[in-house]
Amino acid sequence: MDVEYLDHMGNDLAVVNAARVSFSKTSEWLPSGSTSDYPDVVYQNIDGNPVNLKQGDHKLIQYLARHNHWTPFAHTAIKLRVSAPVPIRTQCFKHKSGLVENEESRRYITTTPELFIPDSFREAPMGNVKQGSGEAHYFSKQWLDLYQRVGKEAIAYYQMMIDAGICPEQARFILPQGVEVNWVWTGNLASYARFFNQRTDPHAQKEIQYLAEEVGAIIEPLFPVSWKALTA
Amino acid sequence: MDVEYLDHMGNDLAVVNAARVSFSKTSEWLPSGSTSDYPDVVYQNIDGNPVNLKQGDHKLIQYLARHNHWTPFAHTAIKLRVSAPVPIRTQCFKHKSGLVENEESRRYITTTPELFIPDSFREAPMGNVKQGSGEAHYFSKQWLDLYQRVGKEAIAYYQMMIDAGICPEQARFILPQGVEVNWVWTGNLASYARFFNQRTDPHAQKEIQYLAEEVGAIIEPLFPVSWKALTA
Amino acid sequence: MDVEYLDHMGNDLAVVNAARVSFSKTSEWLPSGSTSDYPDVVYQNIDGNPVNLKQGDHKLIQYLARHNHWTPFAHTAIKLRVSAPVPIRTQCFKHKSGLVENEESRRYITTTPELFIPDSFREAPMGNVKQGSGEAHYFSKQWLDLYQRVGKEAIAYYQMMIDAGICPEQARFILPQGVEVNWVWTGNLASYARFFNQRTDPHAQKEIQYLAEEVGAIIEPLFPVSWKALTA
Amino acid sequence: MDVEYLDHMGNDLAVVNAARVSFSKTSEWLPSGSTSDYPDVVYQNIDGNPVNLKQGDHKLIQYLARHNHWTPFAHTAIKLRVSAPVPIRTQCFKHKSGLVENEESRRYITTTPELFIPDSFREAPMGNVKQGSGEAHYFSKQWLDLYQRVGKEAIAYYQMMIDAGICPEQARFILPQGVEVNWVWTGNLASYARFFNQRTDPHAQKEIQYLAEEVGAIIEPLFPVSWKALTA
Repeated sequence: MDVEYLDHMGNDLAVVNAARVSFSKTSEWLPSGSTSDYPDVVYQNIDGNPVNLKQGDHKLIQYLARHNHWTPFAHTAIKLRVSAPVPIRTQCFKHKSGLVENEESRRYITTTPELFIPDSFREAPMGNVKQGSGEAHYFSKQWLDLYQRVGKEAIAYYQMMIDAGICPEQARFILPQGVEVNWVWTGNLASYARFFNQRTDPHAQKEIQYLAEEVGAIIEPLFPVSWKALTA
Repeated sequence: MDVEYLDHMGNDLAVVNAARVSFSKTSEWLPSGSTSDYPDVVYQNIDGNPVNLKQGDHKLIQYLARHNHWTPFAHTAIKLRVSAPVPIRTQCFKHKSGLVENEESRRYITTTPELFIPDSFREAPMGNVKQGSGEAHYFSKQWLDLYQRVGKEAIAYYQMMIDAGICPEQARFILPQGVEVNWVWTGNLASYARFFNQRTDPHAQKEIQYLAEEVGAIIEPLFPVSWKALTA
Repeated sequence: MDVEYLDHMGNDLAVVNAARVSFSKTSEWLPSGSTSDYPDVVYQNIDGNPVNLKQGDHKLIQYLARHNHWTPFAHTAIKLRVSAPVPIRTQCFKHKSGLVENEESRRYITTTPELFIPDSFREAPMGNVKQGSGEAHYFSKQWLDLYQRVGKEAIAYYQMMIDAGICPEQARFILPQGVEVNWVWTGNLASYARFFNQRTDPHAQKEIQYLAEEVGAIIEPLFPVSWKALTA
Repeated sequence: MDVEYLDHMGNDLAVVNAARVSFSKTSEWLPSGSTSDYPDVVYQNIDGNPVNLKQGDHKLIQYLARHNHWTPFAHTAIKLRVSAPVPIRTQCFKHKSGLVENEESRRYITTTPELFIPDSFREAPMGNVKQGSGEAHYFSKQWLDLYQRVGKEAIAYYQMMIDAGICPEQARFILPQGVEVNWVWTGNLASYARFFNQRTDPHAQKEIQYLAEEVGAIIEPLFPVSWKALTA
């Protein structure tokens, strides 16, 4: 599982100015070198200069996020390259609003896929809980061995089918769901923040919590004030 | 793979009247028993009576479809229960606009999944073609045997992991992608017609062509004039 | 301003069963005539019989709403006919997700539009508040007279332009924004509940608060448990 | 009416590489200074250097556009500031998919709005045609005078109401629909191309044809190959 930055549009000031169009106003950066007694000052690197938002613009972003006025955050774009095993990819794609994805297609490609290996196999959750997981299973190591043996064997059979001339679109049925899929993912601040908030929840699967944290680690330095406000 | 009707809202006249709101007009069914010299007359069963559209309303639907005025078709709803193997399910879910899905979650359920068995394993496409498939592979029967043996073994290992107390959300990584997933799918005429047109194309995977035809077979009698116009 | 019921698909049990597909389960109505000690029992008229949800299904709907699991509520459809003055219509159409609209078009129609007359003209909000309104203005009656005189005069000029052969698509520029627009609006429970919650907020414009309450009054008896849970 | 560039993300090569992720491939610019015998060569200024796409990448973009594979075009963003009179703004906002807007709100602002003045008032279309317009009306000049007198009077009454302490959210009902609205509009290549194609159609209102051409004039130099392919 991996997340890589590709491109983005916008910064915290762009969020502010998308909101201020409601009032027919625009704002500007507090100039580089200005002192600020605002406690939450965040310096941002714009064109090689450290700048920060005016205090009123900080507060506006916090107000927008608190009242779920999400459209000013949507005039931004962040483009990432992500890889994750099939069920985690499927969870990611459940987030539709404001996100677009292009993924590798096993109708086209026939290269040997990579098997995702978890750190450990975890126990089922205790008691009446219906989802999630507990600590590492007592025999986690043995299950990891089994999983890798079975998974790699299935991948080997896949490759045999490809080599024998079976069409890729059907051969993929034999692949384990643990193989990794690569995709390009583009969304805006508001859509990624919804993804992050839902998928870093302790009830989410550990694997997607990890992925969401990686996404957050990329976006936060690009939009520090907005990201903090949206994910508070 | 299977598609089952659950519920729907609307009929061809509802499409007509959603369009006629632009003109502040409403239309009605040509009454039961009326004779019509319109060649394309389609009798529909509304409240137990055979009725059909007026000729002008037929033509309006055809005009709307031909010029991609899709919103009048979107004031409808069709709810289906579908099952398909993972990669086909993933293709279905690429259709986002106007569709919503709820699928069974292997974070919750631990029942033994069913393996999709194709009629045959097909050959890779000939020449320079990058996707699709050809005729049944010469050794299709042998590959089917192999696929079922490997697939069912993986399912058995899955069940072992569940029985040993591994959390379902991780155990599913060992499952083959050929296992069937069930979901409830709700969309409107316009969104299902886009799905149908794209997925019955000869370049689409045979398995999704079959699924799209099943979807069409359910929707067509509910909206005969509209469906014919949208999928012409 | 007016809201009229046109059609719908679904009921509270359909919401329950769209959620239970995650667990590969389905539920049923508590049969007509069953006694229930559940305090929140809501009898619903299904096929002419009073039925209600099982207690566990009540609780499931409340759980889904509280945790913003909105997709089970989206396998439903409600179709309305609405009229409102231009700026209120514009606020309604800001709600995009899960809603589709077809409105009358003044590129086509040339009938005399109706002017929306508010009960009173309200005062600007006090102090530092940037939006909303206060009580009726002291001279509300005089402003209402002025508004009607100016508005109706503009409508008369519109009609003169139409009669003189000016194209409708341009003549409409002279119309006041207070003229009413008619549209057909189709959405699901989740999307209408978002609209209702945001537009019945005390900060919303009084006129759209009224419209949202009318929408709620139509939907609540169709989905009593779900609507109550989503708008709590 | 006016359209102004604010920001963007992406270029033609980014479109190519969003598509090539399906094949697990990436492409690069043909280096600056390379000669190309490809007839459709378009030099683009990237980081101050003239570069162009490889011939195969040109062809890929054309293939994607021709077959309506729109997602690779959606990993881009273009942010504009637009102003247009109310009915034209409403037509723009009918384009929902992949576009987000923030507009000035006359619940907040109370400045004197600007009245849009068309070049001429056109005749209604001839014969049985239901929408559109013909040549300038014989008395266009007189109608323009009337429109401006009535429109400016209504704006003056609006200002009187504001000055007298009427809440802005109601005072706006008296404004003519011809007043201009400002908004920030962010979308991707695919969504703007759909807007452009539909609104430069000869059946579209002249005013929105003009606006769509302005949008196109801004986007084309940023994505010359893609824009040409999408709007062919």
